[in-house]
Parts: sequence; C-alpha cells; structure tokens
Amino acid sequence: MILTVTLNVALDITYHVERVDWGHVNRVARHGTRAGGKGINVARVVTTFGHTATIAGFAGGATGEAIREEVSRSGIAHHLVAIAGESRRTVALVEGGRTTLFNELGPEVSPDEWAEFRETYSKLLRDCGVVVLSGSLPPGLPADAYAVLVRRAREAGALTLVDTEGPALEHALAAHPDVVKPNVHEIQALSGRECAEANDVAAAARWLRDAGARGAVITRGADGMVASNDEGTWLGLPPERLTGNETGAGDAVAAALAIGLEDGRPWPGPVADAIAAGAAALMSPVAGDVDLEAYRRFRRLVRLQEA
Amino acid sequence: MILTVTLNVALDITYHVERVDWGHVNRVARHGTRAGGKGINVARVVTTFGHTATIAGFAGGATGEAIREEVSRSGIAHHLVAIAGESRRTVALVEGGRTTLFNELGPEVSPDEWAEFRETYSKLLRDCGVVVLSGSLPPGLPADAYAVLVRRAREAGALTLVDTEGPALEHALAAHPDVVKPNVHEIQALSGRECAEANDVAAAARWLRDAGARGAVITRGADGMVASNDEGTWLGLPPERLTGNETGAGDAVAAALAIGLEDGRPWPGPVADAIAAGAAALMSPVAGDVDLEAYRRFRRLVRLQEA
Repeated sequence: MILTVTLNVALDITYHVERVDWGHVNRVARHGTRAGGKGINVARVVTTFGHTATIAGFAGGATGEAIREEVSRSGIAHHLVAIAGESRRTVALVEGGRTTLFNELGPEVSPDEWAEFRETYSKLLRDCGVVVLSGSLPPGLPADAYAVLVRRAREAGALTLVDTEGPALEHALAAHPDVVKPNVHEIQALSGRECAEANDVAAAARWLRDAGARGAVITRGADGMVASNDEGTWLGLPPERLTGNETGAGDAVAAALAIGLEDGRPWPGPVADAIAAGAAALMSPVAGDVDLEAYRRFRRLVRLQEA
Repeated sequence: MILTVTLNVALDITYHVERVDWGHVNRVARHGTRAGGKGINVARVVTTFGHTATIAGFAGGATGEAIREEVSRSGIAHHLVAIAGESRRTVALVEGGRTTLFNELGPEVSPDEWAEFRETYSKLLRDCGVVVLSGSLPPGLPADAYAVLVRRAREAGALTLVDTEGPALEHALAAHPDVVKPNVHEIQALSGRECAEANDVAAAARWLRDAGARGAVITRGADGMVASNDEGTWLGLPPERLTGNETGAGDAVAAALAIGLEDGRPWPGPVADAIAAGAAALMSPVAGDVDLEAYRRFRRLVRLQEA
C-alpha cells in the first residue's frame, strides 16, 4: 500500500469562464469541486495505475466535511484527523487556455492535533511499503514535520518520497528520504543555484543527494526532468513539447516514482514511467486524472540519456 | 418584523490579493467567508438599523451547512428549507480597488422543495409587516416565483419590495408589489428604454408603475437614484460622488426602503434614507455592512428634487 500524506488538504474549486469581465459580476455556468492537495491527487493517480493508496491528513470545519465526503465518493481509503480549524479552499479560474490559482493558506494545526496525526500515521505505517509526503505545511506545524515523518517511516521499514519546497524540504533532506521531487523553480530558490541548462539541473540533483536525499528528481516542465541516485544521473525528455496543468503533472510524476519504489524496480525505468505519467496528466484539466491510453503512447516515446 | 427572502443563498468567499499573477499560483493571505445572497445582506442592514429581520430561503449540501452556521453566528432568525442540491458559492476577488465577482448559478430546486418553502413562508407571514424578495431565482423555480410570493404576502396583509431583474422582475410586476428596486442596467435591459439621463430614468420608473409596481426606485450608481410613486417622482443625489461595493449598496438601499414601509412613512423621507444607506454601504468591502456614523453624516447631505 502507498500512503499519501497531505497535511494541508483542500477543497479544490474550478471555475470555467469564457472571458472574465474585470471589476464586474461573472456568472459561472460550469464549475467543479473536488478534494485536493497534492497527496490526494497522488493517491488518485496511484489508484488509476492499479495500485492501492491510502490518504492521511487533517480536515476541519464545513470545508473539511465537504473534503471528507468527496474523498469517500472516490473510494480511496482515508484517515483525516479532525481539527478545530477550517480546512482551506483553492479556486482555479480557467479562461480559455489560462489557469490562475488562488490558494488559501490553510488552518492553524495545534500541537495536540499534530500529536494525534503522528499516532494515526504510525498505525498506518504497519501496512505500508511507501509513503509520499506532499505539499505545503499548514500554519502551526513545525518546519521539520516531514523530517519527523520520514524518520518514523524508515523505522517502520517504509520507503519515502518527499515533494515539497522551502524550509520543509530543507529539513526533510536531513532525514534522508529515499526520493525528493522538487521542480526547477523550487530547487533554484532553495539552493541559490542557477538551473537554466540541463547540466546545472544535474548538478542541483547531486547537490540534493549531498544534502541527504538518496535519490532526487527535478522536474523541468516542458523540458522534462533530471533524476539522480547511486546508480546514475539521467536526463529525461518528454515525448513532445507539451503545456497544460502543471500541478496535476507533478503529482502524477510523484505517483509513478512511488509505484517504482513499491515494486522495487531500479532507475531509470520508473523515471521513464514518471515522465510519461506527467505528460499524460498535463493534458487533463483536473489534477489527479491521468489518461492511461495517452500514458502508454507517451511511455514508448520517452527519451532518457545519461547525464 | 421584516422578512427577507433569498431563494438563491450563497456562501460568499472574498479573496484579497495584492496583485494577481495570471496563469500562476497566488497565495491568498487574507480571505473572508460569509453567508450571502442579497436578502441575507438586506437582513443584516435591517438589523444594524435596529429593526428585526428574519431570513427565509433554501440551503443544501456542505455549502448549505456552512451558510446555516454562518447565519446562526450572526444572531438573525432564519428558516432555510433543506434541499437535495448543493447551495452555491460566490468568489469576490479584491485586488487594490477592483472587485471581480464569480457567481455560481445555484442548485436545482425541485417542485416539492418549492412547495415546502411556500408553506414555511405562509407561516412566517403571520408575524411580518414587510417582505423583501431579492436576487436571482435558482434553477428549477418557475419564473413567476416572486409573483406567487407577492400575492400571498398581500393576502396576509404584508407589504412587499422586490429587487430582481429579467423575467423574474417582469412576472413580479404583474402581482403589484409595493416597491420594485432595479438598477439602471437592469431596467434598461428589461424595458429596452435608453436610460442615460435623469429624465429617461424618471420615465422608466413611471413605466415600471404602469407595468404594475406601486412604487419604483431605480438606482444609478454614483448618479444616485430616481424614485416614483403615487405621491410624486424624485431625483435623489448622493452626498458626493462615491465608488465602491455596489452589491452591498443596493442591498442597503433595499433595507432602508423596507424600514420606511414598515414604519409607514411616506416618500420621499425613506428615499433619502436609502440614498444615505447606499452611500455608507458602498464604502464597506463586505455586503451587509453599513457604517452608521457615515450613514448619519451622509443623511444630512443627501439632496432630493422633484423630477
């Protein structure tokens, strides 16, 4: 079982608007509402690929209740610890080809609620081979929250993948996660390194390993990704230059890498899977959705070269 | 007691964003959530002016639950008939001085739910002197829904104010409401009349009375309003040229007019109150909020002239 941890779950609201009338009232004829937060999207993709996922996180208030209901409808097992605060919403405004996201910061989580989460997490680790820890930390949690969870997973014999940025990523590195998966902007911000060329990104991936990660994947949007572990460093190119839903693409990449970890397959096979999964997800407007037919087509066309 | 009917209640979400980064992720550091829909705003203003209001409408799903909780916190009595559909949200995006609204259409209301509402409404009419019927109709309700409610109010001895547009307003006129309060854009769209000058608007107000309304108030934004009933036609000018939250202003105008009806005061006194209330509400970013000190200051400065 792959356990996905989403400490800052969200109710993702999508508004489709033909053309926004700025400063005035816009009637939204078509909208969607879905439980979100990166880890929930990862769990959906894991399930689409035929593996079993379990969702863990926090939920509170009326928005938390809506998230619980929506996750229940998806059929994925979930353990969302109740909190006093109100879970956050995100609003995605889709006009033609452009999507603009508005993300609330999320509720304050108390020390007691964080302790209760760690207890739930320890129980879930008993049946779990891989843990994916994704997204931002809600206010109130310590910056080393992911580091704590990575260490506890290792003690329980589970492998870990961390997909976050900033101080949360920095602290997580010190706990030696099996894979970290920042994007090129996040690694540039954290390391202070220029990452314009593939060689720079490869150096940044090695820097992440020096800082503690056993494996590092840096996604580069339409330029593909760089992956590096003990066995080598690879430059992966997508089948063609694609643009689209980048949130969904990053979560599909994490899901494919987690499946590779669970199956115990050595790189670069899972890296190629991840590129194809990311490319297939990019084409869906809804994060967590992957078209399996597109995935199979892209998988044959992915190019990998040693860096 | 003033009964405010909001058939399409909403959860109003406000996002404050310094400057929107289009096509990317915007973190919303400050947001507000409040029960809304025009009638709920009217009830808040009525209460602020020291009168008693009761809210009636529909609520469904997790969003409906959030609306119920929020209305309960306000302390205003409410009777929201439970529906199977999910209540709507609105998102107001405030960047600097510009506010852009995104309004979901609202849930489908079934014939049985509409019948249950009419039963609740009839009971509430027993203690009620004035009914304010505001806003759009949710999908599923007949276009003459407001006409039905206006007739039933008159049978119960209550006065009525209707604030809506399009077919819902057209049908309501035939039921002879005591006051209708469209804005200049709404009356232009409905009547097909040009309403650029004050004289045109005065003619449109008389047209509304010919069509069935006993009194008509047409709001003109920063240009003030025109009011017309059996006793005369007045042109009202705001104390100064103001711009701001027009939704809130319209609802404050309706509240002041409803209070005038309840107190049995002849026009143009309540018209002058309504101009001052609208101007005071314009300055608050939150619909339903009126600064009473600003109201009193503006009230002394309002100018009224016979048209």
